[in-house]
Amino acid sequence: MPQDVYNKLMMLAKRRGFIYPSFEIYGGVAGFYDYGPLGSQLKHNIETIWRQFYLLKDSCVEIHTPTITLYEVLKASGHVEEFTDLTVECNKCKHAFKVEDLVKAGVSAEEAVQNGDVSCPDCGTTFTEAHPVNLMFSTYIGIGTGRPAFLRPETAQGIFTNFHLLYRYCREKLPFGVIQVGKGFRNEISPRQGTLRQREFAMAEAEVFFDPENKNHRNFPDVKDKILYLFDNEKEMKLSLKDAVDQGVINNQALAYYMYLTQDFLLTVGINPKKFRFRKHGGDELAHYARECWDAELLSERFGWVECVGIADRSAYDLTAHIDASHVDMYALRKFPTPKEITVKKVLPNMGKLGPLFKRKAGAIQKALEAMTTVPKHPLILTIDGQKISVPSECYEVVETIEKQVGERFVPHVIEPSYGIDRIIYFVLEHSFEEIQKKDEEYRVLHLDPRVAPLKVGVFPLISDERLVEQAMDIDRLLRDALLTTFYDEGGTIGRRYARMDEVGTPLCVTVDHQSLEDLTVTVRDRDSTEQDRVPVDTLIAYLKKRLG
Amino acid sequence: MPQDVYNKLMMLAKRRGFIYPSFEIYGGVAGFYDYGPLGSQLKHNIETIWRQFYLLKDSCVEIHTPTITLYEVLKASGHVEEFTDLTVECNKCKHAFKVEDLVKAGVSAEEAVQNGDVSCPDCGTTFTEAHPVNLMFSTYIGIGTGRPAFLRPETAQGIFTNFHLLYRYCREKLPFGVIQVGKGFRNEISPRQGTLRQREFAMAEAEVFFDPENKNHRNFPDVKDKILYLFDNEKEMKLSLKDAVDQGVINNQALAYYMYLTQDFLLTVGINPKKFRFRKHGGDELAHYARECWDAELLSERFGWVECVGIADRSAYDLTAHIDASHVDMYALRKFPTPKEITVKKVLPNMGKLGPLFKRKAGAIQKALEAMTTVPKHPLILTIDGQKISVPSECYEVVETIEKQVGERFVPHVIEPSYGIDRIIYFVLEHSFEEIQKKDEEYRVLHLDPRVAPLKVGVFPLISDERLVEQAMDIDRLLRDALLTTFYDEGGTIGRRYARMDEVGTPLCVTVDHQSLEDLTVTVRDRDSTEQDRVPVDTLIAYLKKRLG
Repeated sequence: MPQDVYNKLMMLAKRRGFIYPSFEIYGGVAGFYDYGPLGSQLKHNIETIWRQFYLLKDSCVEIHTPTITLYEVLKASGHVEEFTDLTVECNKCKHAFKVEDLVKAGVSAEEAVQNGDVSCPDCGTTFTEAHPVNLMFSTYIGIGTGRPAFLRPETAQGIFTNFHLLYRYCREKLPFGVIQVGKGFRNEISPRQGTLRQREFAMAEAEVFFDPENKNHRNFPDVKDKILYLFDNEKEMKLSLKDAVDQGVINNQALAYYMYLTQDFLLTVGINPKKFRFRKHGGDELAHYARECWDAELLSERFGWVECVGIADRSAYDLTAHIDASHVDMYALRKFPTPKEITVKKVLPNMGKLGPLFKRKAGAIQKALEAMTTVPKHPLILTIDGQKISVPSECYEVVETIEKQVGERFVPHVIEPSYGIDRIIYFVLEHSFEEIQKKDEEYRVLHLDPRVAPLKVGVFPLISDERLVEQAMDIDRLLRDALLTTFYDEGGTIGRRYARMDEVGTPLCVTVDHQSLEDLTVTVRDRDSTEQDRVPVDTLIAYLKKRLG
Repeated sequence: MPQDVYNKLMMLAKRRGFIYPSFEIYGGVAGFYDYGPLGSQLKHNIETIWRQFYLLKDSCVEIHTPTITLYEVLKASGHVEEFTDLTVECNKCKHAFKVEDLVKAGVSAEEAVQNGDVSCPDCGTTFTEAHPVNLMFSTYIGIGTGRPAFLRPETAQGIFTNFHLLYRYCREKLPFGVIQVGKGFRNEISPRQGTLRQREFAMAEAEVFFDPENKNHRNFPDVKDKILYLFDNEKEMKLSLKDAVDQGVINNQALAYYMYLTQDFLLTVGINPKKFRFRKHGGDELAHYARECWDAELLSERFGWVECVGIADRSAYDLTAHIDASHVDMYALRKFPTPKEITVKKVLPNMGKLGPLFKRKAGAIQKALEAMTTVPKHPLILTIDGQKISVPSECYEVVETIEKQVGERFVPHVIEPSYGIDRIIYFVLEHSFEEIQKKDEEYRVLHLDPRVAPLKVGVFPLISDERLVEQAMDIDRLLRDALLTTFYDEGGTIGRRYARMDEVGTPLCVTVDHQSLEDLTVTVRDRDSTEQDRVPVDTLIAYLKKRLG
């Protein structure tokens, strides 16, 4: 059976140190992969470019929050209830599967099980019932009075729960964006797509907070005529950002701008523009928090179109959920041109009643009452520490006061570009992979952009003559001191050494030959054209840095 | 009560966006912290310098492995048995404590509990028994036939379990080093030292593999006369690397070299050399895997000397453990000058006996027998899939053969420098913190090294005149395009704005004034000297980059 690009690439990836299956010496586990020396460098380079796009082009700030996340956070965000896959478990062979993986596209998973159309791919048993299984890894913090927790399914919640602090950091002005780069976790039922469906994955997310009345973006005018590759689930089209927003294909400037930033980033790191498109989510596939969502999809020979980035309008969903659950003030302020006098209804807690009635809970109830922005309905039910409590109307008073207000409070909306870094790494490899026949041998080249290539320069002595070796090693040291990642190699023929570098995408190779000893010049060979330049050693670093971009 | 530096620093850290307590809106949990915008940048800069030390100065390679780690890995490494704290749990108030935190230094934890000398700090109940509690967070991969796992207590195991692949990547030559930068996890019983004792922490580790017969280091001659600050638990001393090794204070060149690299790194990122020392572990405090260990300790006003880096000789402990448990060949080869003919004893499995006797396990037993490098003792007990199996002597034969061997196999030794990044971040802040009185106000300065400072340049218009604002914003954009992290500020007096930048350690501030409009020059103010230079805008970037190092 001829091997497809995925197979060839994964063999190359393991052999040359890009990607290893995790825990292989103990039999491995589906959904876990390691990055070897070259894979780590590739990942590092891609993340560095990503940060440049978001921190410098877009002026976001970055934060880091723990991967272990308190139960309360993910309860409030809806992940405890909603982050599930419909699952079947085989009574006979004990294997478990996501129903979606066992039915044809377009068939309802629920119905297929009810109709007895789903059976175990391992032992043939017909499944009669399915149930939703939560996809979060759970753990427990501490012992004794410890607390339940999950590994985060997204980095976003760590940003939302700090909104009030970040709003202050950003001088209480909207819009502002916050990024996080780190691990996300999904306890997939039965991952089957190699590195494309991992249980622990690298992600990079930006949460950009907007006033819902103004989802324009400061940089939009600079890019409004750029073209986006769009697919509305029926036809593909090319539209300028401006036209897409004007025609209502994309809801607002902010969404369109982050789609363009995403497209620009993906093409910069080496995605083939012919294998790239944005697809709009249909109403039935939107996540529980999303109002509109576009996926950047990349085309794979084996897997077809695969979602690698989601750009979603999460509206006020998350901040509202955390305000409701924590009673912490996470509103923003929209200033009036001049202060206004406004009649305000306020809820005044009556501690004389609350105290005797609710004892230790009275303080929390007081806080919740004071945080209310609407007049309470009867009977008033509050959720305090996860417990529903009915508060009698004599425990509070609704009073009208006239207040001088400098502005009005609102819950900001969020535009979220969310990147799956591992998938992007895979596609950068697949889209740059080429295999040709050369003298009855397969010859493989990774046409990686120099900015993402893990090794920038191969350094070789033409032959293993002591003087050539010494000069080559000196040059290798020189280039490393100039922060260029190099690979020194004196093993095998020069052709074999070029081949090794081509296979891992190294853009340039420097060779020291006999002429080098006389005139202090070296040859520099280009990976893609295989052409060679002769370059003086004393201008070599500048020459290489220019060629590498 | 006057506040100590820790209190002052933590208030500054939260107010200015360095460090936030995690999940604060849900009451927080001890041992978890977030890095805000400035803290993230500080962390990023420190990790970047760390990578330069290990990838470029020391030619290590980097890998990334999952934080979720299979049970089998940590069972083999000894963490399931050994990674514990002696713990007491209060029957009355349900709180749990690490016994060591409740007894005086030098008192045996076990004895103190036996003598009834330990009581609950929260309710006073005397503890009558203590038990070891494992400090790993546990979780479960998949459902149905899923597998138990832990969050990794160290990044090192991900390197050891890939040794055979990394050895091949490094052309089967020792020594070579492999680094990993990422999260580690310890489910502390009752963490009480703020950011110094976190349950989820950032770490950076290098595992450097050596031939046990040659623990010399290639770079040792370059640094042999440098001075190390050492403490042998009795006296402090200053010794050159060479003297320390020659006198047997430090066991070998490799340990001494990585101690020096650590010292060089810590002083580079801004640790005060007067608050720095290496302390040697006594025999009773060595980790289960360590043969010799030195801690880089840093001095804190509140916490005294705190371990921030451990440099350990893990000998062949880990690789041997994984070879024994997995039966995978993770040996290295020490080549003979010329091939030798050697009489070898080999274990030949007898499948005719093994098959009927052990059925489905016969294959695994065969593999284990073939991997044996010593003649088996009677009775031969093998551990297969965690189960002890006695293999009768008729199931194998020991034969002598003469083999031509190109070298001999051995298990490499490991020297491990392991860095606690969060602690280093804390100490960089504490050691750079200064508070002075200025006009009846506390004035705070962080004297951060420009390479680690989160913001490099503050950019201000002197007053909020439209023309000054425009030029200042242009300069801000110019500097960002040159990859300098800036902070643009037009709020408040110029003195207040300098103060804000001093407080977060920004080395330089650029101010646009009226003269700027005429002659296109700006002032550049130095944080530490407060002196100002006048610099033309068209040479500003070069000027700043030079000043920032």
